[in-house]
Amino acid sequence: MGFVNIMEESKRKQKLPKRSEDFSGWYNELCLLADLADYAPVKGCMVIKPYGYAIWENIQKELDKMIKDTGHVNAYFPLFIPEKFLKKEKEHVEGFAPELAVVTIAGGKKLKEPLIVRPTSETIMYAMYAKWVNSYRDLPILINQWCNVVRWEMRTRLFLRTSEFLWQEGHTAHATHEEAEEETLKILGLYKDLAEDYLAIPVFQGPKSEAEKFAGAKMTYAIESLMQDGKALQMGTSHDLGQNFAKSFDIKYLDKDNKQQFVWQTSWGVSTRLIGALIMMHGDDSGLVLPPKIAPYEVVIITIAKGDEKKKVMIGVEKIKTELKDRRVKVDDRELAPGWKFTEWELKGVPLRIEIGPKDIEKGEVVLVRRDTKDKNDVKMEDLKDTVAKELGDIQQVLYNKAKKFRDEHTFEAKDYNDFKDKVENGWVLIDWCGDAKCEAKIKEDTTATMRCAPFDKEGVPKKCAVCGGEGKMRALFARAY
Amino acid sequence: MGFVNIMEESKRKQKLPKRSEDFSGWYNELCLLADLADYAPVKGCMVIKPYGYAIWENIQKELDKMIKDTGHVNAYFPLFIPEKFLKKEKEHVEGFAPELAVVTIAGGKKLKEPLIVRPTSETIMYAMYAKWVNSYRDLPILINQWCNVVRWEMRTRLFLRTSEFLWQEGHTAHATHEEAEEETLKILGLYKDLAEDYLAIPVFQGPKSEAEKFAGAKMTYAIESLMQDGKALQMGTSHDLGQNFAKSFDIKYLDKDNKQQFVWQTSWGVSTRLIGALIMMHGDDSGLVLPPKIAPYEVVIITIAKGDEKKKVMIGVEKIKTELKDRRVKVDDRELAPGWKFTEWELKGVPLRIEIGPKDIEKGEVVLVRRDTKDKNDVKMEDLKDTVAKELGDIQQVLYNKAKKFRDEHTFEAKDYNDFKDKVENGWVLIDWCGDAKCEAKIKEDTTATMRCAPFDKEGVPKKCAVCGGEGKMRALFARAY
Repeated sequence: MGFVNIMEESKRKQKLPKRSEDFSGWYNELCLLADLADYAPVKGCMVIKPYGYAIWENIQKELDKMIKDTGHVNAYFPLFIPEKFLKKEKEHVEGFAPELAVVTIAGGKKLKEPLIVRPTSETIMYAMYAKWVNSYRDLPILINQWCNVVRWEMRTRLFLRTSEFLWQEGHTAHATHEEAEEETLKILGLYKDLAEDYLAIPVFQGPKSEAEKFAGAKMTYAIESLMQDGKALQMGTSHDLGQNFAKSFDIKYLDKDNKQQFVWQTSWGVSTRLIGALIMMHGDDSGLVLPPKIAPYEVVIITIAKGDEKKKVMIGVEKIKTELKDRRVKVDDRELAPGWKFTEWELKGVPLRIEIGPKDIEKGEVVLVRRDTKDKNDVKMEDLKDTVAKELGDIQQVLYNKAKKFRDEHTFEAKDYNDFKDKVENGWVLIDWCGDAKCEAKIKEDTTATMRCAPFDKEGVPKKCAVCGGEGKMRALFARAY
Repeated sequence: MGFVNIMEESKRKQKLPKRSEDFSGWYNELCLLADLADYAPVKGCMVIKPYGYAIWENIQKELDKMIKDTGHVNAYFPLFIPEKFLKKEKEHVEGFAPELAVVTIAGGKKLKEPLIVRPTSETIMYAMYAKWVNSYRDLPILINQWCNVVRWEMRTRLFLRTSEFLWQEGHTAHATHEEAEEETLKILGLYKDLAEDYLAIPVFQGPKSEAEKFAGAKMTYAIESLMQDGKALQMGTSHDLGQNFAKSFDIKYLDKDNKQQFVWQTSWGVSTRLIGALIMMHGDDSGLVLPPKIAPYEVVIITIAKGDEKKKVMIGVEKIKTELKDRRVKVDDRELAPGWKFTEWELKGVPLRIEIGPKDIEKGEVVLVRRDTKDKNDVKMEDLKDTVAKELGDIQQVLYNKAKKFRDEHTFEAKDYNDFKDKVENGWVLIDWCGDAKCEAKIKEDTTATMRCAPFDKEGVPKKCAVCGGEGKMRALFARAY
C-alpha cells in the first residue's frame, strides 16, 4: 500500500468548509479528509495515519540530522516517572500537576508509589544524570530523545493539542552558564532553520515572559509563527534551566580545582504540533499545500486512460518514473474520472501533479500542474527532470515568501493601548512593555492575547509601556494564540 | 559528545566476570560497563544509553527499510487502550491480564473507565481498522508502528525482559487467508534476514506450539537462536491471527460479489531484546564483539602520543579520517595509557582498532587490530581504505560462521527421552513429538525446557513421540530459554 488508500465514496461527498467561513472547521475536516489523522477512541488522543506520519518521518529525518551534526546523541529513558521525582522541582510539578496521567495498578497489584506517565522527561533523566556526572570530564552531556509524552488536556485539537503526542526532547548539562546559554540559543537556531528552510514557515525567535516560560526554567526561548487566521502558534521551545534542576536532583561535578559545582542545564523540544502548523500556514480551500522538502510525495502521476489506452499510457508512466527516480513519486492509475483524482491529490497537497493521457504520449509530453498556484504547463518528456527540480525548488521558495508576506502584513506596532486592542484582532502586535505581569494579565483579560516572545530582530530601545505607561523594559509581541 | 563518555575511574576498576564462571553476571556487568544501558529508578525498567541506543537505531534503519520495501507504511496509534477493548478478544486479554499497567487517574480525576498502557496494540489498532475498512478496495492494510510497550514482568533482565521496551509491531488486514499466511511468512523471512545478515546470528524459523503461541493468534511463527550458554532466545515472532480479532472487532468488508466478509489478519514484532541477543551471541571475556553492520562505530582510531608528539600524530589521524570518510569512525586521542584505551574499546566491541603513534607516522603505516580474533597487522596508509573494507566484511562473516558452528554443535537429536534430558542441558534438541500439550508440559516440568519451534529446515517424517511413544506429528526443537 502507499501512504493513502483509495478514498471511500462517502468521503468524496464530504465538503471541505471554506477558510473564510469557518477556519476551525476547515482545519478539522482537512486533517480527516486528507488522511493525516483520525480521532482515537481515547479521550483527546489521535491516530496519526500513514500520510500524516510520513510527514513526521520527514521532519524527524531532517531535525535528527541537525541535532546529531551539532554533537548530540540519542538515548531512551523510561515512560514512567516515580511521583516523588516529579515533586522535587517545585515550579515544575505545579506546572504539570493538573495534566498528569497516573498509573496506580501494575501487574495486578496496587502500586505503593504511583507512577506518572511522562509529561516531559526532565526529572527521570536528571535522576540518572546525577549518577553519571562526577567530574568535569563527564561534561557536557548532550542527549536527545524521540518519544511519546502525555498531558491530559481539557480542550484538544488534532496535532495542535492532544493528550498524547510525539516529540523530541533534548536535555543537556554543562560546566558553565555561558555554555548552557550558548546551547539554548544554538538549538533555537536549529528550530528556526527547520521551520523556515523545510516547513517554509517564517518565525520570530526570542524569550518568553515569566508567565509563559516552562515550569522550572530560568528562561524560555521560543519560535513563534502566525497562522492564516491571525493567531499565533508556538512551534518550539528551548529552555535555559539554570541550576534549578541540578540543585533539586543534586547533579554535581568536581571541577579542575577539585571543587564541587552544580551543573547548568538546558532542555528543548518540538512536537507533532509542527504538522498542525504546516496545515494552517499553507493550506487553501482545496486542501493541503505541502512544502516539497517534507511532503510524503513530491510528485503524483495521474493517468487519464481507460481500457485499451491504459497499456500505452503505462509505458509513459514508467518512463516518467525512470526520469524522476530520485524523487518521491506516487502513481495513481485508477480508472476513475480524472476530476476525482485531481480533487483527491489537491486535497492531499502533493506539490506537483503530472497528467498523462494517450494524446500526451503521442506528443511526447505531459501536463505539469503546480498545487500552490494551480498553474498548468505542457512539458516535453526530455525536459521533465529539470523542470520538476526547478518547480519544486520554486514552490518551496514561493510558499515561504507568501507566508512571510502574510506574516509581515499582519505584524503591527501600536500607537497606544486602544490601537493595540484594535490591531490584535488581525495579527500580532509589537508593543513596548514594562515586563510587569499585571500589564500582561490585563492584556489577556481584555483581548485574550498572550505574550509570544520578545523577538530578537525587533529589539530596540523601548519607550513607555503601552499598557501602564511605566518604564518600557522590552519590545514584546502579543497575539491571540493556539 | 560521542556515544560514550570518558570511562570513570571507578568503572575501570570493575572486573568483567568470566563467561565460563558466571554467564549471567558477565551479561549484566557487560551491559553496564560497555555503556549500553543502566538500571532505571522504576521497577524493571531500563535506560538505554547512547551507545546502546545507537545499536538500536542501526537495527531500526535496516529493518525499517525492509518493511517499507515490502509495501508497508508506518503510522502511530495511542499509548492508552480502553479496558473494554482489551477484553474483546478472550484469549488475548487472558494472556496479557497479569502484566498490565493501568492508568486510573488523569487530569486530576479518577477515570470512569481505566486505561491500559499498551502491552501490544492489536486491540486499539483494530478498533480503527473496523472503521477504515469497508470494501475490498480498502485492503490490504499494511501498517507498522515503532513504539514503546509496557508489560509488567516479575523477573527482568536488561534488554531481554524489561517492563517497558521499544519495538516495532506490524498489523495487517487481508481479504483472504492465503494472503495473510503469505504475509506472515514473508515477515518471518525479513526477520531471519535481519538476524543472519546484519546481526550475524543464525536462526531457526518455524511455528510455535499451541502453548507458546501469541495470545489470540491462530498460529505463531518465530525465529529462534541459541546463545553461548546453550539457552535459546526467541528473537522475533510473526502471527497468523486468522479471523479472531476481525470477529471480535467486527472488521468486515464488502467483497466483489457484494457480500460481507471478515478480514484475515497478521501481526509481528521484534524488540530491543535483539540487543541482548547480540551481546550474548558474540561477546567474549574482554567484552562486546559487535558485527560491523550494526556497530555504532566500525573503527576506533587510538592515538599513542603525548605532549609534542601528539600534534604530528593528529595529522596522521586526519589522513585516516579522510581515507575512511564513508565509515563510522571514532577517534580516541585522550592522553591516557594506551592499554587503558585498548581495554575500553575492546569492552565496547568496536570491530576494528587502528593504533597510531609517532613511529607509525614515520613509517607511513598504522597498526590494525581485529576485535574478534585480536589479530594485529601493520597496514600501509595507502592500503588502509581497502584493508578496512575487507576486514570489516570478513569480521561480519566470521562472526556468523562462528555462531553457526556453535549452533550446529549444540543442536542435537535424541534417541529417547532419557537421551533428550541429557542433551537438553547443553543446547537444543530436536525430537519427534505428538504435539500434545501434556508431553510438552512434562518436558517443561522435568527439564524446564520449552518448545521453541518446529524448524522449517528440519522437517521430515516424524516417527513416534519421544515422550509418550504416541504417533509423531512434527519434529520440534526444545530448549531451556530466556
